[in-house]
Amino acid sequence: MTINNNYLNLKDSYLFSTIAKKVREYSSQNPNAKIIRMGIGDVTRPLVPAVISAMQNAVVDMSKAETFKGYGDEQGYGFLQTAVKGYYAKKGVPLELNEIFIGDGAKSDLGNILDIFGTENAVLIPDPVYPVYVDTNIMHGRKIVFMNGNLGNGFLPMPIELNKTKADIIYLCSPNNPTGAVYTKAQLAEWVSYAKKHNAVILFDSAYEAFVTDKTLPTSIFEIKGAADCAIEFCSLSKTAGFTGTRCGYTVVPNALKNGDISINKLWLRRQTTKFNGVSYVVQRGAEAVFSDEGLAQITKDIEYYLGNAKIIASTLDELGIAYTGGNNSPYIWLKIPNSNDSWAFFDMLLEKAQIVGTPGAGFGASGEGHFRFSAFGQRENVIEAMERLKQILK
Amino acid sequence: MTINNNYLNLKDSYLFSTIAKKVREYSSQNPNAKIIRMGIGDVTRPLVPAVISAMQNAVVDMSKAETFKGYGDEQGYGFLQTAVKGYYAKKGVPLELNEIFIGDGAKSDLGNILDIFGTENAVLIPDPVYPVYVDTNIMHGRKIVFMNGNLGNGFLPMPIELNKTKADIIYLCSPNNPTGAVYTKAQLAEWVSYAKKHNAVILFDSAYEAFVTDKTLPTSIFEIKGAADCAIEFCSLSKTAGFTGTRCGYTVVPNALKNGDISINKLWLRRQTTKFNGVSYVVQRGAEAVFSDEGLAQITKDIEYYLGNAKIIASTLDELGIAYTGGNNSPYIWLKIPNSNDSWAFFDMLLEKAQIVGTPGAGFGASGEGHFRFSAFGQRENVIEAMERLKQILK
Repeated sequence: MTINNNYLNLKDSYLFSTIAKKVREYSSQNPNAKIIRMGIGDVTRPLVPAVISAMQNAVVDMSKAETFKGYGDEQGYGFLQTAVKGYYAKKGVPLELNEIFIGDGAKSDLGNILDIFGTENAVLIPDPVYPVYVDTNIMHGRKIVFMNGNLGNGFLPMPIELNKTKADIIYLCSPNNPTGAVYTKAQLAEWVSYAKKHNAVILFDSAYEAFVTDKTLPTSIFEIKGAADCAIEFCSLSKTAGFTGTRCGYTVVPNALKNGDISINKLWLRRQTTKFNGVSYVVQRGAEAVFSDEGLAQITKDIEYYLGNAKIIASTLDELGIAYTGGNNSPYIWLKIPNSNDSWAFFDMLLEKAQIVGTPGAGFGASGEGHFRFSAFGQRENVIEAMERLKQILK
Repeated sequence: MTINNNYLNLKDSYLFSTIAKKVREYSSQNPNAKIIRMGIGDVTRPLVPAVISAMQNAVVDMSKAETFKGYGDEQGYGFLQTAVKGYYAKKGVPLELNEIFIGDGAKSDLGNILDIFGTENAVLIPDPVYPVYVDTNIMHGRKIVFMNGNLGNGFLPMPIELNKTKADIIYLCSPNNPTGAVYTKAQLAEWVSYAKKHNAVILFDSAYEAFVTDKTLPTSIFEIKGAADCAIEFCSLSKTAGFTGTRCGYTVVPNALKNGDISINKLWLRRQTTKFNGVSYVVQRGAEAVFSDEGLAQITKDIEYYLGNAKIIASTLDELGIAYTGGNNSPYIWLKIPNSNDSWAFFDMLLEKAQIVGTPGAGFGASGEGHFRFSAFGQRENVIEAMERLKQILK
């Protein structure tokens, strides 16, 4: 028996597992400390009433033989695919039902989509970046080329001509995790042209699209003409509707996306029908309710609440004269650490001196060093208190 | 961009998707036909009251900020790992909590476990077999060696010495899908010796362990001395507790299982923390209730109901003089098709002449040809009626 040796090339553990461990240790040594968590992007507001009601009804369905649901199609129930189709129609993006795959979240689909691509592909990944893109490709043994985000390009890397390497898979995340930066339509159109020119596929992580308030900014790669034959879009209800512990997302694989004659949509269908058994019925009914008029109105209030938190964090940094991206159109604020290039030291200092948990930029890649991420998903009072503590220690 | 060319070596679609399509077509052409489904192993009895109650409470938890749950550990909540640990303790198998990984079902984990092994491994797979084992290894480009089940060995393949190929991964499923046959402890001990001798890992699919009524038969590979350093066990609540549409299972990766110094448990943890975000909280609370005294008593009644169906099917075949395995200790009956070696023709005939859906043995592998699987998960009245129809057309 041999193992997949690529795993030996990974860091010891997933970034957020490392942070959770540090926080647990601090907490056990300081049991009275009131730790305010602004690190992992985890929501705090409960599921909205429309979703709760739908899930309660679905549990009742499961209690009676007449309405009990066994296996569903792996790609999701038609009622939920239809709801997602309607959501895209509002963005002016027409989809077929079969292009919509219901899954248990973007993290799973972003990792598992790699199964259907060859490993000889070179992958273009932004830096800084959500660690999953890097780790999952290391596990598959693919060559990774990083495109650097920095203050100069507003942490929005643009296409680069590579001398020796051909990029076959391109990751874009907008609104961006961790930087909160958002690509414009014009910028995404450049990326679509580049992908077509190089016969590459864009893996577009749209997990934070619901936070965009500026109506000139795109909320789907498919708003860009021509993207349907060179992009796959990954969406999640985690941040949109507080489903981090409920688990539901959707991945859009256009029928127009092909490799020669081979339909990428059919490959993903084959992967999912073979290695997955669908999302829980109760959860799919909850997800369906998100897209009802009532559900959308309720989740919009929660998104506005989180964006209100982001504004408070941003204002505090303005007061302190600290540079940052994000905070508008995104629940993340990505700050330049004052007077230091050591983000883990800043992490430790914040935890010890202010009992605030954030995420060190170095955890997101080499270009993340010297930066730090705050997430705006906490409770308002905690965000306000955290910012007071921050002003105390950094003034 | 290149695709994973191994996908071109797969049959067009997953077996049960093909069957579902044929049944849909027949049904639309014959809208008044009362089709009785004994094909895919899908349960019909609703979730038991203890589970429903737990899920209802969990949905209430999710409706309030104080009890709302966001991200859980990817490997599952401690409350559920603890319940599973207790279930194994009753089998006389002591486990550590960290050896128990909560997942969304055996189908996902059986496919995804392959990520952590090298692709140069040769895989030993029974024939006939649950198609997922074969398809997922084809997707990874591994060499497959089939071990034939047949009437002679009671569809329980035993270790074979391979001349040129070294088997590194061995799939065993007991109680077996599709044949319903069950390995004895002595037989499993031979497999454990073989795996140790060849430094191979056994992937033990225990999805049907709850159907074993004969107390001399093992319900876990870990009842066999020495299995902890050469086996991984995959369990599911799908058939045990009717979770086919609810989605929960658990995979046991012993700490003793190593490749040299490398801990397989740590590799699986790394895979799951990177490519998975855990099972829905509401579902985990439902799963926890399965293992309570109340839950176990309730699911046991449902298992007895399904075994009662199996007995009716078995008795009918006895009357008709048709040979079969399974039906005891298993919800599957695997029959030798009378006077024919064409299982798809038998499938079509049963559907057209008796409106019964079964699963053709050829769908499970070359050694499955000439055989046919009935599943005993239907409603009692339907099973009785189906057997009357069968007697009519086969007498």
